[in-house]
Amino acid sequence: MPELRLNPLTGEWVVIATERAARPESFSQKDVVKAPPMNACPFCMGREDQTPPEVYAVGPEGRLPNTPDWKVRVVPNKFSAFARDIIPADEGFLQVNPNGVVAAGYAYGAHEVIVSSPAHELSIGQLELEQVERIVQTYQRRYRVLAKDKLVKYVQIICNHGKVAGASLEHPHSQIFGMPVLPQNILTEIERTREYYKLNKRHMLLDAVQNAREKNLVIYENDAFVMFEPFWAKVPFETWIVPKHWESRFDQLTEVELNALAQSISIMLQKLYLKLNNPPYNYYIHTLPVTEEAGKDKVGFLWHLECIPRISIQAGLEYGTGVFINTMMPEKAAEFLRES
Amino acid sequence: MPELRLNPLTGEWVVIATERAARPESFSQKDVVKAPPMNACPFCMGREDQTPPEVYAVGPEGRLPNTPDWKVRVVPNKFSAFARDIIPADEGFLQVNPNGVVAAGYAYGAHEVIVSSPAHELSIGQLELEQVERIVQTYQRRYRVLAKDKLVKYVQIICNHGKVAGASLEHPHSQIFGMPVLPQNILTEIERTREYYKLNKRHMLLDAVQNAREKNLVIYENDAFVMFEPFWAKVPFETWIVPKHWESRFDQLTEVELNALAQSISIMLQKLYLKLNNPPYNYYIHTLPVTEEAGKDKVGFLWHLECIPRISIQAGLEYGTGVFINTMMPEKAAEFLRES
Repeated sequence: MPELRLNPLTGEWVVIATERAARPESFSQKDVVKAPPMNACPFCMGREDQTPPEVYAVGPEGRLPNTPDWKVRVVPNKFSAFARDIIPADEGFLQVNPNGVVAAGYAYGAHEVIVSSPAHELSIGQLELEQVERIVQTYQRRYRVLAKDKLVKYVQIICNHGKVAGASLEHPHSQIFGMPVLPQNILTEIERTREYYKLNKRHMLLDAVQNAREKNLVIYENDAFVMFEPFWAKVPFETWIVPKHWESRFDQLTEVELNALAQSISIMLQKLYLKLNNPPYNYYIHTLPVTEEAGKDKVGFLWHLECIPRISIQAGLEYGTGVFINTMMPEKAAEFLRES
Repeated sequence: MPELRLNPLTGEWVVIATERAARPESFSQKDVVKAPPMNACPFCMGREDQTPPEVYAVGPEGRLPNTPDWKVRVVPNKFSAFARDIIPADEGFLQVNPNGVVAAGYAYGAHEVIVSSPAHELSIGQLELEQVERIVQTYQRRYRVLAKDKLVKYVQIICNHGKVAGASLEHPHSQIFGMPVLPQNILTEIERTREYYKLNKRHMLLDAVQNAREKNLVIYENDAFVMFEPFWAKVPFETWIVPKHWESRFDQLTEVELNALAQSISIMLQKLYLKLNNPPYNYYIHTLPVTEEAGKDKVGFLWHLECIPRISIQAGLEYGTGVFINTMMPEKAAEFLRES
């Protein structure tokens, strides 16, 4: 039963989810956990019975759930960090004590896996555009379903690629979380972009796009999105995809915009794959909490996507202070990724 | 010449320091950088000419600088993230534009390496207590020197152990940074502990110690310090060392307290070494900025040490939201580390 606990010093939430690894000894450096080989992969077609029952799939009309012949398949995570069935859905599942350091409760919510394609060995950067469109459409569809739960305050979409980036299964997949708390990172971004708007009457992220143009940091753009290395990239080849026009919430995108996003993601991952020889990476979407009405907040926050290649190491300075040392000039990284 | 740049969305500073790795191609996954072997280690005794000239050392009376026969040796980092000699020491080296997204400047400051012992292959957890005392005394001595620079606002002490934790050289060492900006993490902790004090008239971290006692999370204690797993540990075996009595700044410790700290660190690292088979880790000290007068701020922040074993992977959820999934119950980790 996953538990939520708050770090009172930082305001950051932690999920204690012990189903994956119960024995302290299992953390000894002698043990090495190996991903199941391709011939036992639970995400491959034909092994639909080895995952929890699917909650959504893209496939031909008339296909029965949990049978083959899907293009994208969504299942609850076998080791959910957030779970719906653990408690009665009342409001008292999370207790905060203002006179003490303890804020904790059940990690109520959802945690789903979006299997990106039947192809075990192809990363998203190697898939055809049509398939990336299916993935991005699935992101939005599941976002909307998870956002309907009244106890869910924030929906997070992420993709981990490669073992170093935390992908415990090799088969390409994304994950979506519906959580009952607001992440500190998102709260900070909302607060800072709103203050910026108050001061400048402009959107911080649209100014960041302008800054990227001036400094030659743009890698690619289409009608709806600009892809660039942020001037303040914290790791080598950090890449952002930002909408050209204001929109605070990812779930509000039109189908045309979704397809333009798929095109941007596809090009970004192709470039990383080809130019850096299939590096591990994480990408994630930052969007307004579902608790805030879409379309109303026009004074600050823009939804966007950030991609963090995991080719550098985060050490004590980064953990201790949040100050990152980046050994790659973002201007050079942009030039390198722009070249075709 | 290292550069400081601010991420305007998060308020976090980044240092762009490109001397270590200039070519974009060097980040391709084909290249693997190897640490120099023991017979070429620049931190070993007898190779004092292979580091920048030392700034401090513990050794016998009459020893000449940059010669052998030292117990602890401090040298500027060869690839400094913060450097004193890059600019004239005026106030204009850091430019912030309130009407735009750019805040950047020179990474003025200091970045030193504290070589922990002449023994190449012994981690700090394997050294005798007397040597750990020398290391901790050196931390404080260099802290005080770096803090004297009027442009330095914050001094950070860290230790990276193991390649996975960011130690690029095997020979045990710590690092100390003098930086001209206040890290966002520290600002947040100060703000939250002060608010807590305002509300409760108690120190948050002393309450955290009390909470650790009640929940059986304490691993060890001596006259001056308590070592425990925080209730909200974000990674397996995260361990904190917190003073028993209020003190906001590490540099204010008496010699007796320093030795009690050395004892705590030594026991913590011994336990990790023996029980988890020499895991990689980072530890770092959080202390009040040097810009705040010591002894005056009795209304919140406590200096302390946090240790993060690097035996779990930080993935997209952690990078994207700051929400960590910890697969090890802190209560169980404490029990495991307590057993001798």
